[in-house]
Amino acid sequence: MVGRVRRDERVSATREALLSAAERLFAEHGVHAVANRQISEAAGQGNNAAVSYHFGTKVDLVRAIARRHAEAIEVGRLRMLAEIGDSADLRDWVACAVRPVTGYLEALGTPSWYARFIAQVTDDPALRAVTAEEFAAGAPSMRKLQDGLNRCLPDLPAEVHAERAAMTRHLITQMVADRERALADNAPTFRASWGEAANGLIDAIAALWEAPVTREG
Amino acid sequence: MVGRVRRDERVSATREALLSAAERLFAEHGVHAVANRQISEAAGQGNNAAVSYHFGTKVDLVRAIARRHAEAIEVGRLRMLAEIGDSADLRDWVACAVRPVTGYLEALGTPSWYARFIAQVTDDPALRAVTAEEFAAGAPSMRKLQDGLNRCLPDLPAEVHAERAAMTRHLITQMVADRERALADNAPTFRASWGEAANGLIDAIAALWEAPVTREG
Repeated sequence: MVGRVRRDERVSATREALLSAAERLFAEHGVHAVANRQISEAAGQGNNAAVSYHFGTKVDLVRAIARRHAEAIEVGRLRMLAEIGDSADLRDWVACAVRPVTGYLEALGTPSWYARFIAQVTDDPALRAVTAEEFAAGAPSMRKLQDGLNRCLPDLPAEVHAERAAMTRHLITQMVADRERALADNAPTFRASWGEAANGLIDAIAALWEAPVTREG
Repeated sequence: MVGRVRRDERVSATREALLSAAERLFAEHGVHAVANRQISEAAGQGNNAAVSYHFGTKVDLVRAIARRHAEAIEVGRLRMLAEIGDSADLRDWVACAVRPVTGYLEALGTPSWYARFIAQVTDDPALRAVTAEEFAAGAPSMRKLQDGLNRCLPDLPAEVHAERAAMTRHLITQMVADRERALADNAPTFRASWGEAANGLIDAIAALWEAPVTREG
């Protein structure tokens, strides 16, 4: 019994080491540019087959990395949404889209790799299905958020609502990846802190939701 | 002399075939997932070394693909900017950021591959320097555009101006890639035409430039 617990702990530590090494290498060099062998080496695993043994294919590995972050962000978002009252305005709802992400990255510290990793995955033809799945995993909070936005903007046509939801997602994904990269490279950033960066995103995103809808053209 | 012209034409046709095949394969499968051999085959070149002979490394090939589109878009943008008068408002300047891109993609027809290709390149650690170079190639129109935005928003702090310029770039890049993918896959789109998609982007981007700047946290 004690032997099995120790073995489970060892397996779990190995998996964590592989996930962390993979995430860092993917963010810095690109998901497709990194071989499983390099991940095993960076994780201190003598066995080159460690990645496929623990995770299967590269897509499975990407999914495992995405999942552990998505779950943590979802927990934070549900907590923030639970605190939101009936008097919440558009800006409060938008904050629930932005701050769970910026707060999570702040907590990870510098350098982090997740934001660059996920931005890459989003635009990759072979990997983007993974983010769609992770997006589905965040469905409980997203549904609540969409309902809140709908209540603030009851007259927005459904297809424009969907379009602006996509814009919101892209702005958050890309801007936090830029900031993470700048921090890792010790390059200048637009804002002094993740909290300030969140302000910038919330200002922009709240404004785009409230923009008039032009039809002619 | 005639012989040399014919040879130059043949070389030029081969280069064009390789560029088109590479762009399509990169957009559909991912830049790193595609081997030079596959590009040569898809371009009808018997010689597997055709890509390296004509373009050098994969980064050089990516640069060549990006350049031919960036130059065409720059021509369109400079033409649009030349027509803009002293009475231009924020929306007119934002239109000069958006419509040269959406108009170019409309002219390419469906399916096109450029938008998905460039979105991938933007988020790839090994390739993103290429877009930075292409961005520099578009500097003449960008400078004029930034000046126009500055005149409309004289009180916007410089770092917020830079932040919103980055947001503008990301929104255009990502939303046109989404639309191109949906059209290629015969999937639903938010808007019925590229012109309508441009309206949606201009509405959102003009609003985010005019958003108030929140400082407290």
